[in-house]
Amino acid sequence: MSKKVVIVGGVGGGMSAATRLRRLDESATITVFEKGPYAGYANCGIPYALGKVIKDDESLILHTPKYFKEYFNIDVHLNTEVVEIDRTNEQLILSQGAEAVLPQIVGADQSHVVTLRTISDLQAIRSIMVERCVRDVCIIGGGFISLEAAENLRKMKFGVSIVEQWTHVLPSIDADIAQFLHTELKRNGVKLYLNDTARRIETSHVVLASNGREIPAELVILAVGVRARTSLAKMAGLEVGTQGVKVESHMETSDEDIYAVGDMVETKHIIQQQPKVVALGGPANRQGRLAADDIAGRPVHYRGNIGTIICQVFDLTVGLAGLSVSALRDLGQEPLWVTVHPPHHARYYPNAHPITIKTALEKGTGRILGVQAVGMTGVDKRIDVLATAMQARMTVFDLEHLELSYAPPYGSAKDPVNMVGFVGSNLLRGDYQIVHAEDINIKNLHAWQVVDVRSPEEFANGHLPGAINLPIATLRNQKLELDQSMPVLVYCYVGYRGYLAFRILSQRGFSVVNLDGGLKTVVEGGTRL
Amino acid sequence: MSKKVVIVGGVGGGMSAATRLRRLDESATITVFEKGPYAGYANCGIPYALGKVIKDDESLILHTPKYFKEYFNIDVHLNTEVVEIDRTNEQLILSQGAEAVLPQIVGADQSHVVTLRTISDLQAIRSIMVERCVRDVCIIGGGFISLEAAENLRKMKFGVSIVEQWTHVLPSIDADIAQFLHTELKRNGVKLYLNDTARRIETSHVVLASNGREIPAELVILAVGVRARTSLAKMAGLEVGTQGVKVESHMETSDEDIYAVGDMVETKHIIQQQPKVVALGGPANRQGRLAADDIAGRPVHYRGNIGTIICQVFDLTVGLAGLSVSALRDLGQEPLWVTVHPPHHARYYPNAHPITIKTALEKGTGRILGVQAVGMTGVDKRIDVLATAMQARMTVFDLEHLELSYAPPYGSAKDPVNMVGFVGSNLLRGDYQIVHAEDINIKNLHAWQVVDVRSPEEFANGHLPGAINLPIATLRNQKLELDQSMPVLVYCYVGYRGYLAFRILSQRGFSVVNLDGGLKTVVEGGTRL
Repeated sequence: MSKKVVIVGGVGGGMSAATRLRRLDESATITVFEKGPYAGYANCGIPYALGKVIKDDESLILHTPKYFKEYFNIDVHLNTEVVEIDRTNEQLILSQGAEAVLPQIVGADQSHVVTLRTISDLQAIRSIMVERCVRDVCIIGGGFISLEAAENLRKMKFGVSIVEQWTHVLPSIDADIAQFLHTELKRNGVKLYLNDTARRIETSHVVLASNGREIPAELVILAVGVRARTSLAKMAGLEVGTQGVKVESHMETSDEDIYAVGDMVETKHIIQQQPKVVALGGPANRQGRLAADDIAGRPVHYRGNIGTIICQVFDLTVGLAGLSVSALRDLGQEPLWVTVHPPHHARYYPNAHPITIKTALEKGTGRILGVQAVGMTGVDKRIDVLATAMQARMTVFDLEHLELSYAPPYGSAKDPVNMVGFVGSNLLRGDYQIVHAEDINIKNLHAWQVVDVRSPEEFANGHLPGAINLPIATLRNQKLELDQSMPVLVYCYVGYRGYLAFRILSQRGFSVVNLDGGLKTVVEGGTRL
Repeated sequence: MSKKVVIVGGVGGGMSAATRLRRLDESATITVFEKGPYAGYANCGIPYALGKVIKDDESLILHTPKYFKEYFNIDVHLNTEVVEIDRTNEQLILSQGAEAVLPQIVGADQSHVVTLRTISDLQAIRSIMVERCVRDVCIIGGGFISLEAAENLRKMKFGVSIVEQWTHVLPSIDADIAQFLHTELKRNGVKLYLNDTARRIETSHVVLASNGREIPAELVILAVGVRARTSLAKMAGLEVGTQGVKVESHMETSDEDIYAVGDMVETKHIIQQQPKVVALGGPANRQGRLAADDIAGRPVHYRGNIGTIICQVFDLTVGLAGLSVSALRDLGQEPLWVTVHPPHHARYYPNAHPITIKTALEKGTGRILGVQAVGMTGVDKRIDVLATAMQARMTVFDLEHLELSYAPPYGSAKDPVNMVGFVGSNLLRGDYQIVHAEDINIKNLHAWQVVDVRSPEEFANGHLPGAINLPIATLRNQKLELDQSMPVLVYCYVGYRGYLAFRILSQRGFSVVNLDGGLKTVVEGGTRL
């Protein structure tokens, strides 16, 4: 008897499931109900359609019901909300996605206050822009979509402000990496109000909770996060966890005839080892595919997520795979980490730009727990290489050996990924000791003899308080002014010369630490001494 | 007692060894002899310095002997050739590199016939250009350096021709991938003479062996490959293999006090499982580092190479990790392979360019044996991700699961690497049967019912001989004209609709194959039907 499969939700996960199932089983009856007006559309492109980088909204609508019928013999019903599950002998795949969290702000119910998740939102925003002669936009929330929206709105010459309740944008990354984004946002005229919330929204402005300041805004975009759509699943008695619907590795819910995939489910985070909603297109697509495989009788096993993310912020790219140091600490872990700033390709080839890579490592094993990277170019490559290494359960020791492509326009004989391997392995093998920018401040710096090993010219342009200048080029030969009974903190600008100084001094019997990531991490990472 | 280490050769491997050893051991006496006028220079940048992309030759000279003395207390002696090894109780690291193979061509001894390996070569070429009022340059050999040189010379408005004795440029890649480069080279005005050699070199032209044709050239660059410098090692009685000096995994030669690293040694090719010279900067640097580690008493093990390479050819990038299909066949293997052409980032985001990825797989296991990729952008990322996967011993089944970064400017929810996983896994699981472009020709096409599943408009613009047009959109519903007793070959432009048609028809009892990589592989890969 041929299978009957109903799919609730016609975007990423749902349509991946539907089309995969058809390819595996010509005889199945496959029906998709989508509550919105489009199926198979690219919601990740919406901020770029707003900014007309994607010129035509139509190009976000990847496929129509006609396409799915003709190519796949799938019946897609748009504008059709499923309100109850009547359990029959049909199989069901839920792919309802997530919905925007609406913060409780006075005035948030006005017509010029919108979310930015769907093509309908996009059209609403365009109408408001015209009707209200919008000049300034306030974005509540500082996540990925907010940053993409801010960039696109600035390119359209709107005034843009972001209000973020956390101390930095992108709470899933660390503050020092986020600081690079703050600088870039400000450089591009975006006003940032961090550690703050909106007290109320007026017709022409947003009032900040901290000080009552009025932020001009004829349009307010709410983007404080998303929440899995679980109400239908709950009504059907399916198990729901703290974040989303619970699923097994076959993508089955607590009812084995009901599958759930995408932004509405919680799946194992490989590093966190806890169920977590990962509201991203890649996992949703893979989960949909696996649900179809399971229905078709294929052996499948969803491996979980490491949460690989990437975001363009004007001329910068920021990426994460695994967990940030602060997220690891929130889990009670005490990871080691190293920071490097190598150029994205050969330094001698024009337009080499540094990539800052912060890599969290498990003590002892060297397992890679998280990678954050920020820079102008080549960031996505390193994130993907390191994400692959993490999924292959490689350690930082393996990164030393990785044979990556090198020609001057693309990389270096020692790729930034290798550099992470070298520095991390040195640390784990005990060849190297570091302090982090967060470990130093104006008071405790006195506990060290602080040695700046850069050139006198670099030193003269600014240095750590109390530092003395002993350039690496003359460190071996001069009669050392240093007191062997007192620990030494060495540093340079990015960490390499500091490392050389560490090796020289530690072999002479000094107790030494190098400043991880050098003065650049202090300055550009926003350390307050 | 402090160690005394002598290093012969002061470029990549030698200087990596020297500086790493110093970092590990402040007390060692480290002396480097370099026969050329520079140490630690970037020979990979030379074609770009020729084209003034790298504006200043000085920037190729990464470091001076003064730098190595000051920073590392290493004595570097330039212009000093080591002619004999006198075994003492010193340790020795040989890093003599490779030298250009000089083809036996009548007239190759003239002053306007040069190689392109060193800064001295670069300076010689510049002099010839001025003295001889060079307008046309002929490059003998079609390897990586030749292609980089051709691009740079064209950008300087020289006429450029390449004479390659093999049937395509870059003999380490397959002919169909090389065909993309041929098209790009010709589009940029480079004249290609393939399957041909130079009979003799005259003062103003090169005479081709095939037909006596005269190729204008006031400057001739010989770039037919390199050969490991092994004569000193041979004199010292060290074991030398078919390609280079033999080394153990510690980088020791047959004499345990003599190490050898870089382009002069043969190391295990991980796919080929045979010793091979890999004349590339990355491996040389890592080998130098490991030799130093071993001398300093660290446990080390060189893992071998997969031969990851990348090359810019005008607006294209081509890359390889592992072995090409033809190289695998030369080893007596019969790999499976799949070809995909996905866009480098979301199709709906502007300027998406296809990447052609050809992936060779081991039957049964799905082990990735080789990856070749060519396209305008994003090629280096996919090569590095796949190189990492290969080094982690991932299979094609693992590629389906890889969680890679996705935002519209960077990739797709299903990254090109995932696509390789999907298509390759389908093939290995038996869900999919293919023929390759090389398997079809005007004669044997009659053995199939050839079905073009594209739209009538696409079909009208050209199709395989004898094909009938049954568009995928109507394939299920029409009364099939096909004869179930005869095998069917389906195809579309890149392979996806052909795959859908395969699934539909095979489930209806037809014996079907899809054309791997679609008509694009036939057309752009240069198949001659």
